[in-house]
Amino acid sequence: MRVVTPFSRRVDDTMESFIMGLVEVAARPGMISFATGLPDNDLFGTDALVRAVGDVLREDPAGPLQYDTASGFIPLREYIASRCRDVLGVDATYEDVIMTNGSQECFDQLGKMFLDRGDGMVVENPGYLGAIQSFSAYGPRFTGVDVGEDGVDVAQLEEALSHDPKLFYSIPNHQNPSGNSYSDAVRVRVADLVRGSGCLMIEDDAYGELGYGGRVGRTMKSMAPDDVVLTGSFSKTISPGMRVGWMVVPEWMRAEANRNLEASCLQSNTFCQKVVHRFLMDNDYDLFLDGLRRGYMEKKRIFLEAMEENLPGTMRWNDPDGGMFIWLRSPEGTDATALFEGALDEKLVVMPGKPFHVRGGANTVRLNFATPSEEQIHEGMRRLGRVCRRLYPE
Amino acid sequence: MRVVTPFSRRVDDTMESFIMGLVEVAARPGMISFATGLPDNDLFGTDALVRAVGDVLREDPAGPLQYDTASGFIPLREYIASRCRDVLGVDATYEDVIMTNGSQECFDQLGKMFLDRGDGMVVENPGYLGAIQSFSAYGPRFTGVDVGEDGVDVAQLEEALSHDPKLFYSIPNHQNPSGNSYSDAVRVRVADLVRGSGCLMIEDDAYGELGYGGRVGRTMKSMAPDDVVLTGSFSKTISPGMRVGWMVVPEWMRAEANRNLEASCLQSNTFCQKVVHRFLMDNDYDLFLDGLRRGYMEKKRIFLEAMEENLPGTMRWNDPDGGMFIWLRSPEGTDATALFEGALDEKLVVMPGKPFHVRGGANTVRLNFATPSEEQIHEGMRRLGRVCRRLYPE
Repeated sequence: MRVVTPFSRRVDDTMESFIMGLVEVAARPGMISFATGLPDNDLFGTDALVRAVGDVLREDPAGPLQYDTASGFIPLREYIASRCRDVLGVDATYEDVIMTNGSQECFDQLGKMFLDRGDGMVVENPGYLGAIQSFSAYGPRFTGVDVGEDGVDVAQLEEALSHDPKLFYSIPNHQNPSGNSYSDAVRVRVADLVRGSGCLMIEDDAYGELGYGGRVGRTMKSMAPDDVVLTGSFSKTISPGMRVGWMVVPEWMRAEANRNLEASCLQSNTFCQKVVHRFLMDNDYDLFLDGLRRGYMEKKRIFLEAMEENLPGTMRWNDPDGGMFIWLRSPEGTDATALFEGALDEKLVVMPGKPFHVRGGANTVRLNFATPSEEQIHEGMRRLGRVCRRLYPE
Repeated sequence: MRVVTPFSRRVDDTMESFIMGLVEVAARPGMISFATGLPDNDLFGTDALVRAVGDVLREDPAGPLQYDTASGFIPLREYIASRCRDVLGVDATYEDVIMTNGSQECFDQLGKMFLDRGDGMVVENPGYLGAIQSFSAYGPRFTGVDVGEDGVDVAQLEEALSHDPKLFYSIPNHQNPSGNSYSDAVRVRVADLVRGSGCLMIEDDAYGELGYGGRVGRTMKSMAPDDVVLTGSFSKTISPGMRVGWMVVPEWMRAEANRNLEASCLQSNTFCQKVVHRFLMDNDYDLFLDGLRRGYMEKKRIFLEAMEENLPGTMRWNDPDGGMFIWLRSPEGTDATALFEGALDEKLVVMPGKPFHVRGGANTVRLNFATPSEEQIHEGMRRLGRVCRRLYPE
């Protein structure tokens, strides 16, 4: 047998995510997907982006093509900092904002910067699988704290923090996968627990701008600025394909975060940062977001109606006030893997909820109502209805 | 004192690079830079790129804005694979090609995948600092093998490989920083050493397409396909700001490399991959590269003439047959830090050679002739001449 180079332990430690694999499955002919977290193609501000690209290249043809500094394009960072101050209640300057290749890269950077193998880390249960996969490479011991309708279970979090974990990863707004948000009371108690604890909280705000009735609560970063890194992204609003994400970091870790990003990829791409900045300068972003929110709220309405119409009474689901996901439950004690497989036979892709859990969750499924067209929603839900009625008859 | 979250050991292990810092210094008013590795703004195919962007967005407005698979846009990977077969002698298919956020990300990915703390790693001395910084985060023990006019010292490499290092990082063509290339004889001997050694060779081909008289030698990947990862980039040819790089990996590590990239950033950006692909489809890339090579060769000629004219006889330098760099030496035993500092006083930025070394190299300086305009070359060289004559008089 030939000698090949042995992998590092990180390769064994890195969990499977399934998510990107399902993108490929979903692309097969005839397939309808409720599985992934893709924004609706029809809601992109395509014409305005085409104008922004043209303007950026006309005014300074070489600039967007050239290298920039590691932390990114300063005018875009200034815009994000001002939005932090005006909308998120976070007292940030552009120097606190570090641009990344989507917010997934933030999770990798923070894992790399803080996790030695065996360190403790708190994650939500269920929690966002893509981020957890990213952290898993650095070999932490994960502790799961349950997330319900009001957000994280505070007593469980307090117990978990008593074991000195390094990081706590959370999505307080319209969580992926459950769609749930932290209540105001939970936010206050979590901030009190995290402040000065020595555990850095990662507040993933990917869906924060997609509250259909506006933002659903104060940011954790505004309540515990030195103990929270807020991560953001234009992937759910402007374009995921451009990979423009960022993190707002406390000053005490700024220099290290910059050096770490430089070591990992030099910088995120100048071209898309300048295009996004131009788009933000030339358009009313709040007006654009309003359109997006209305669009997704309407999608959700259609989706929920189709669920009512097609799914048997044995199934349960929620009605989130933002984001892109509905959390579906088959009866307690059942394993929704069968539902996933049955749906595939019907050429429908759904995302099993189990992989988002460190414990439990076998009977859960994540449904994305944002990506499919209205026609696909109706046809997909007929397929899902057939599978559910067969597996979980009333 | 407040409690902050302790960093991982990686943060201490990660070296400083200086490179991105110098980009900021070089941007100060009145400053001339021979320091960084920026391509010449005037040699970008800006008009053709503007057309490519327009075409891509007109034909499929949403596609470039949307998520893609982790390994990247298949038609672009097919193009790169076909170029591997036709120009690099590498028998690759698109499945062997994984798109990354510039080739810096390849180094991070390979370090992450292979290096446990304390593992051995061979680097060139001098070697490319940016890559070495990237690997340093994973805490390897570096062994340096000297690089001279014919490339790497084969006896030193053989000795280094006897200690079972995991990785060997090299730039066989127009090396950054020295401008030197491996001779044919060295390539054959290195391939023999690496083949089946259990040490994975990373062949950084960033400058391979910038040989002024064509490619200077066979790729290492063609001679030891299972033992070499070839990394490439459009940063030195089409645009660094777009961050479109790739690695061509042996089949035995393909699945792990894909999963690792997904965990780190989901995928590199769809938008720029599609624009670059369109640019390649609609233009004759070899003709474009010919123009680039002629442009840089002319830049080098002007630069060398200005060196002859301005620098004292105590200084030595080479005349590379490709790439962007000239390797300057002050007299043996001197420390070119003084030269760096003296030049800064004259508002000229040069890159000290010492940080590119694991040993020696105090009297070396890397000069980039690609970025400055002809006027800046003349003025910058007058400044450099003044400093050199003062520090190292004849």
